[in-house]
Amino acid sequence: MKFLIIGGDAAGMSAASRAKRSMPEMAVTVLEMTRDVSYSACGMPYNIAVSGKAIEDLVVRQADVFRQKQGINLLTGHRVEAIHPTEKTVSGTTLQGEEFEFPYDKLLIATGGSPIVPDFPGFDLPGVMGLKSLDHGRKIKAYIDLHNVKKAVIIGMGYIGLEMCEALRNRSIEVVMVKPNLNFIPWMADELSYVVQKEVEANGVNLHMGHLVQKIEPVNDSLAVVCDDLTRDADMVIVAIGITPNSECAIAGGLETGIKKAISVDRQLKTSDENIYAAGDCADAFHVVTGEKTWIPLALRANRAGWAVADNIRGKGKPTELDGVAGTSVFKVFDLQIARTGITSKEAIKFGFDPAEVVIKTRSRAHAHPGSTTIMAHLIGDRKSGRLLGAQMVGKEGVAHRINALAVALHAQMTVEQFSQTDLAYAPPFGPVWDPLLTAANQLLKRM
Amino acid sequence: MKFLIIGGDAAGMSAASRAKRSMPEMAVTVLEMTRDVSYSACGMPYNIAVSGKAIEDLVVRQADVFRQKQGINLLTGHRVEAIHPTEKTVSGTTLQGEEFEFPYDKLLIATGGSPIVPDFPGFDLPGVMGLKSLDHGRKIKAYIDLHNVKKAVIIGMGYIGLEMCEALRNRSIEVVMVKPNLNFIPWMADELSYVVQKEVEANGVNLHMGHLVQKIEPVNDSLAVVCDDLTRDADMVIVAIGITPNSECAIAGGLETGIKKAISVDRQLKTSDENIYAAGDCADAFHVVTGEKTWIPLALRANRAGWAVADNIRGKGKPTELDGVAGTSVFKVFDLQIARTGITSKEAIKFGFDPAEVVIKTRSRAHAHPGSTTIMAHLIGDRKSGRLLGAQMVGKEGVAHRINALAVALHAQMTVEQFSQTDLAYAPPFGPVWDPLLTAANQLLKRM
Repeated sequence: MKFLIIGGDAAGMSAASRAKRSMPEMAVTVLEMTRDVSYSACGMPYNIAVSGKAIEDLVVRQADVFRQKQGINLLTGHRVEAIHPTEKTVSGTTLQGEEFEFPYDKLLIATGGSPIVPDFPGFDLPGVMGLKSLDHGRKIKAYIDLHNVKKAVIIGMGYIGLEMCEALRNRSIEVVMVKPNLNFIPWMADELSYVVQKEVEANGVNLHMGHLVQKIEPVNDSLAVVCDDLTRDADMVIVAIGITPNSECAIAGGLETGIKKAISVDRQLKTSDENIYAAGDCADAFHVVTGEKTWIPLALRANRAGWAVADNIRGKGKPTELDGVAGTSVFKVFDLQIARTGITSKEAIKFGFDPAEVVIKTRSRAHAHPGSTTIMAHLIGDRKSGRLLGAQMVGKEGVAHRINALAVALHAQMTVEQFSQTDLAYAPPFGPVWDPLLTAANQLLKRM
Repeated sequence: MKFLIIGGDAAGMSAASRAKRSMPEMAVTVLEMTRDVSYSACGMPYNIAVSGKAIEDLVVRQADVFRQKQGINLLTGHRVEAIHPTEKTVSGTTLQGEEFEFPYDKLLIATGGSPIVPDFPGFDLPGVMGLKSLDHGRKIKAYIDLHNVKKAVIIGMGYIGLEMCEALRNRSIEVVMVKPNLNFIPWMADELSYVVQKEVEANGVNLHMGHLVQKIEPVNDSLAVVCDDLTRDADMVIVAIGITPNSECAIAGGLETGIKKAISVDRQLKTSDENIYAAGDCADAFHVVTGEKTWIPLALRANRAGWAVADNIRGKGKPTELDGVAGTSVFKVFDLQIARTGITSKEAIKFGFDPAEVVIKTRSRAHAHPGSTTIMAHLIGDRKSGRLLGAQMVGKEGVAHRINALAVALHAQMTVEQFSQTDLAYAPPFGPVWDPLLTAANQLLKRM
């Protein structure tokens, strides 16, 4: 059997490795358009933060290991331009300009996503860059060194923008951030968002909410980022306004897509074509809270989906069906940990729930224990069913892993009351007797 | 209605406060045998660690606040010696030697536990002390100062013994630990227990497993701890071989007790007498994994049970039934976090499960992220039902709150496969893409 994979990062290489391990006789070919495979994309801001550190440190497994030790036919510099489901082939062009065509019995589309770049003047100038692939990271690092970047503008204030602002501040680069939305972190309760905003500003970052960038202009050796009533000059501009699934070939090949044009897959990761799977940032998923389709591009899902595809192509026993995503994520910005899982109250209303919510402020350690800091939690439940729907947390410690307890509760479809009864760990250095999550659940119960 | 409470710490004062808040007209009386109420007992080792810090810092709410602001009739120095269920009274003696008797309509026994002290020679010598009440902590602190303690022997290596060993080492006191069992932490997988042992030894603590203390003898101004083939001298001896529920009065009053003589209660915290409740370290609980009775004295349960009793005495709406305990706990010893939840494989066999288990060793942060340390996890599942049964973890970071995700899974009766599908948070500073819990679950699945 010929198993062909488009894309050589998390989902693609997870699938390739697992397929080859469980079915050594299978011909596994991976077509990767860049020269990089299997790297920790999420680690890029932390690598960029350190001058002189090779971006290649983020490569988890070298291409030659996949080729020589694992027997995977891994072809880098191969850009797929078309999928032909009837012929069961894909075609494209190499970086050297040679055309290629590969047949498949089973195809996995793991093309990931790309940074959204608005079609405004100047976004194609040198020094204006997005961050998604290792090559993006490589270019940003090289640009900082080559142009001795002292001032940067980051467009967008999502988690990549915020991680990048910390990275650039670590390199003593002046950072200005700008975006059209007036809310700093719009998916977050105001009280929590404000804490994050203060932390970012305390680290010398200038935030400008409410400004849509209209164009970027070259000014001598640098750039001017021009909004309606604000202009900021910069040596470098990072565009971090989100990513979009790389689904063009899938759409052209006739595959169904859904939310944000992500490729539609079932719980077995199968697309609308029975021989084609999709996994990773290019594919959608079911949300465990709403039961509906969602598109939340995150690394764990990509790896997990890659494995599931390999298992389902192997086809032994019952098929692997993925439960879905809770949208659990965490990021760090300066000294703060910011985490979320599930849905917001706005989303809850949209999906027909009757949300109750509470924001609590408590401490990260026990009464009288030194070193305690503030933890804030926002918990959302459904008045109709009693179910827990989502949560957000902010704090200097004890946030990143605490959110997982709530994520598990969402998978288990727990009610707020059931969650409030859970027996969570307590010791003075790690939290109050009533864990912040339980305090939040207890308070939320009063509003339901 | 007269609500009488025996014991003024976590369970007792939680019940008193909540009862008075929801039923201001109720006469709430608390009889506490010591002079201290409402303190963070778990914080004592951390307080003892700091010379000159008042042990009273651990008091969460002063007695006079309960009396004057909350209107609770709080009587300290009142030792209850008998419960008379037929007469609905309790009787006892004050510290001043005066006899008393109080009537009740509803009684809560929240008498806590006491350190186990073996009936061997010398365990009653001055300088030989257990640690449970604030008064114990006060005595230990005073003894260290007054006798200029330079050397200590700790008998027992449970979490209180280990927390105390860190506290004493922080005060530059030489520490020897001794116990009869050859296994350092017997409820833990050897690989994990060994990591903790090495950490304790690296901090200059001398461990002697396999030695039963037979007597303690006074030697000039100090003490000699004598085992069969080992004698160690010490200025102070801490006895930390466990605690036992304070259930004598309950037993004498005819109430049913169960495991380890803890007072038997139902899910509403009611004892075998319909007017008497029990909560906290003196009472038993249902275990969420086994469904059977267990006795795991922990602070969260005490607080939660106190609230539940107050709610059930109020009696509005449906009664509050507690789900049970998972036995989730965490403690810190030097630079390590040690956590557990659920049952061990030994316990699993005892309760009729067919346990599969796995120990994994992974990293606390993502590939290539600086500052990463080792995390070890031991996961136990049931081959018959597929259920997750328990877990233990050890590491320098990311253990204390991670265990809660597993605790929630135990409450939800999740299978290992369901848990393996959960969408946990990922960011490079906080863990690998595959969270250690998921790696453990994936590995465990192969053995089930």
